[in-house]
Amino acid sequence: MNMPEIRKDYITNKWIVVATERAKRPDELRNKGEASSKPNICPFCPGNEHMTPPEVLAYRHANTAPNTQGWWVRCVPNKFPALRIEGDVDHRVNQLHNKMNGVGAHEVVIETPKHDECMAHMAEWQLMEVIHALRDRYNDLIKDSRFKYLLIFKNHGAEAGASMSHPHCQIIATPMIPKRIMEEINGAKRYYESSGGMCIYDDIIESELDLKERIIMDSSEFIALAPYAASFPFETWILPKKHDPSFEDISDKERADLAKVLKTVLKGIYDLLDNPPFNFILHTSPCDRNDYRFYHWHIEIIPRLTRVAGFEWGTGFYINPTPPEKAAEYMRNIIANPKQSQKVEGH
Amino acid sequence: MNMPEIRKDYITNKWIVVATERAKRPDELRNKGEASSKPNICPFCPGNEHMTPPEVLAYRHANTAPNTQGWWVRCVPNKFPALRIEGDVDHRVNQLHNKMNGVGAHEVVIETPKHDECMAHMAEWQLMEVIHALRDRYNDLIKDSRFKYLLIFKNHGAEAGASMSHPHCQIIATPMIPKRIMEEINGAKRYYESSGGMCIYDDIIESELDLKERIIMDSSEFIALAPYAASFPFETWILPKKHDPSFEDISDKERADLAKVLKTVLKGIYDLLDNPPFNFILHTSPCDRNDYRFYHWHIEIIPRLTRVAGFEWGTGFYINPTPPEKAAEYMRNIIANPKQSQKVEGH
Repeated sequence: MNMPEIRKDYITNKWIVVATERAKRPDELRNKGEASSKPNICPFCPGNEHMTPPEVLAYRHANTAPNTQGWWVRCVPNKFPALRIEGDVDHRVNQLHNKMNGVGAHEVVIETPKHDECMAHMAEWQLMEVIHALRDRYNDLIKDSRFKYLLIFKNHGAEAGASMSHPHCQIIATPMIPKRIMEEINGAKRYYESSGGMCIYDDIIESELDLKERIIMDSSEFIALAPYAASFPFETWILPKKHDPSFEDISDKERADLAKVLKTVLKGIYDLLDNPPFNFILHTSPCDRNDYRFYHWHIEIIPRLTRVAGFEWGTGFYINPTPPEKAAEYMRNIIANPKQSQKVEGH
Repeated sequence: MNMPEIRKDYITNKWIVVATERAKRPDELRNKGEASSKPNICPFCPGNEHMTPPEVLAYRHANTAPNTQGWWVRCVPNKFPALRIEGDVDHRVNQLHNKMNGVGAHEVVIETPKHDECMAHMAEWQLMEVIHALRDRYNDLIKDSRFKYLLIFKNHGAEAGASMSHPHCQIIATPMIPKRIMEEINGAKRYYESSGGMCIYDDIIESELDLKERIIMDSSEFIALAPYAASFPFETWILPKKHDPSFEDISDKERADLAKVLKTVLKGIYDLLDNPPFNFILHTSPCDRNDYRFYHWHIEIIPRLTRVAGFEWGTGFYINPTPPEKAAEYMRNIIANPKQSQKVEGH
């Protein structure tokens, strides 16, 4: 077993994982790797619990045993983790070659026993349970003082990076704070300091609700909007109206509303864009015990509709062919006139 | 004609272009747009010069008229520009919604009259002419004081964002400095200041030549290496050994060596990874007349072999399945034992 290595770029604050566990030779990269290793039997389906590492959490019916059928949400460690749970963080710095060993955690939250039931068609109670499970795992992992950030995200569709089609979210615990999150935090902090203590996200919500043109959905606890400088067509942010730096403090009332808003938005994207691949990323405060009162947790959803040219990665300069105001208008219309949804069984 | 708009993110220094000229509706995004609009006749091929906007530069045989056959490198404005050349920069700032009109330039450098001749198989003299043309256009565009950055890049293969298969580079002139470039510049500046005037790239070259394991090619004027914290498998940087902040100062001797190194590296990638899609991006100093003595121009090449999950975009946290040391070793081996190249006609 090789420990993965986390390395810092020579010049910027970018960190990357050299994933020794998943090391790829040129011929594997040529063949696009994933496809060949895809099993015919889904290890996330009920009855195949033995195919995953033992569960760390499951919501299951009374009198059913762990790692057997009878669950409706199930969390397991990733079989091919990007980072490993064993060992202490070992940080080696020299002027140009800055690295840590790849200590962390990498878990999978299987959202439903139903292989083909995507979030857009899930019952709201099921989605509430998924959010509950994410919070449960979050609150367990946060106790580990080796971790500085807990990254919750979802890849839907092979083109969005999902190697398993059975609906699932992922949690990666990292011993450093990812660059983009750090930039957001620094930006929010600058705003807080220069404005005499205002939260930039509170001001975005107020300003966008006032302008209306980029609002997708305005619910009791959350709003969904197309951000002013969206990098991608139909990029959507979901923000809690109540200022809160951290996801783990979500109340039951908020959890119910988030399930509704998330489902509505994802159903809109599904209907409008014909079930496109997408990613969502939950942005929350680092868990390194510092004070992040100026930050505001939220979810960012990115449908994968356009090819990203390398220069966009290389420069951070994105060309978005769909104005966010137009995207929000399309979304409002499809939400007001949804396509007939397939019937989903209740619990 | 709608003027595109350049917008700044609420929180970070990310800028994006809302490309009104290329505006896409949901149905166009569903159909992946590009494919349907692809012409059967290549407008970049000799004989079809009337299909592009009039040339702004061409290297052509004596006694041939502009916009007719007889050229070996030809530069034209992009027919569907991301930014437009007309008008003054108009910067509107308010606290959350920060924008500029989309003034800029977007040009195409057609590298060869031969539709199927990719850079990896081009004659070195032809590649030298391409570099010369890029520098010529660079030196013309730099005179326009509205532009702060000139972005030179290449997309090879549809998956890397190339909408035309005929070999070409692109130049985009922007009225702001792209975020990733700004980060590099700030990083290089911090190093310069804290080290008492050293260039971080000079130190990278020295250190990597010393360590050897990540060096791909060591030539008279340039080195090619796999960067320590490569985000992508087989990511390759090509750096001039002589400290120089800006590409436009390249000497004829350097140009000849760059053609050799670029061709060798791209041929290695072609042979090793079976002609993968790739991007290259030329990183150089901004052209806003500030002092960038601490910066060092270079080229970054990114083969597009792995699917980038949205969380990687969203967090800037990349998982690279091929250790850069291994990638460099594979590259050194294939360069030492190249596959038989297809015969390329001389000029």
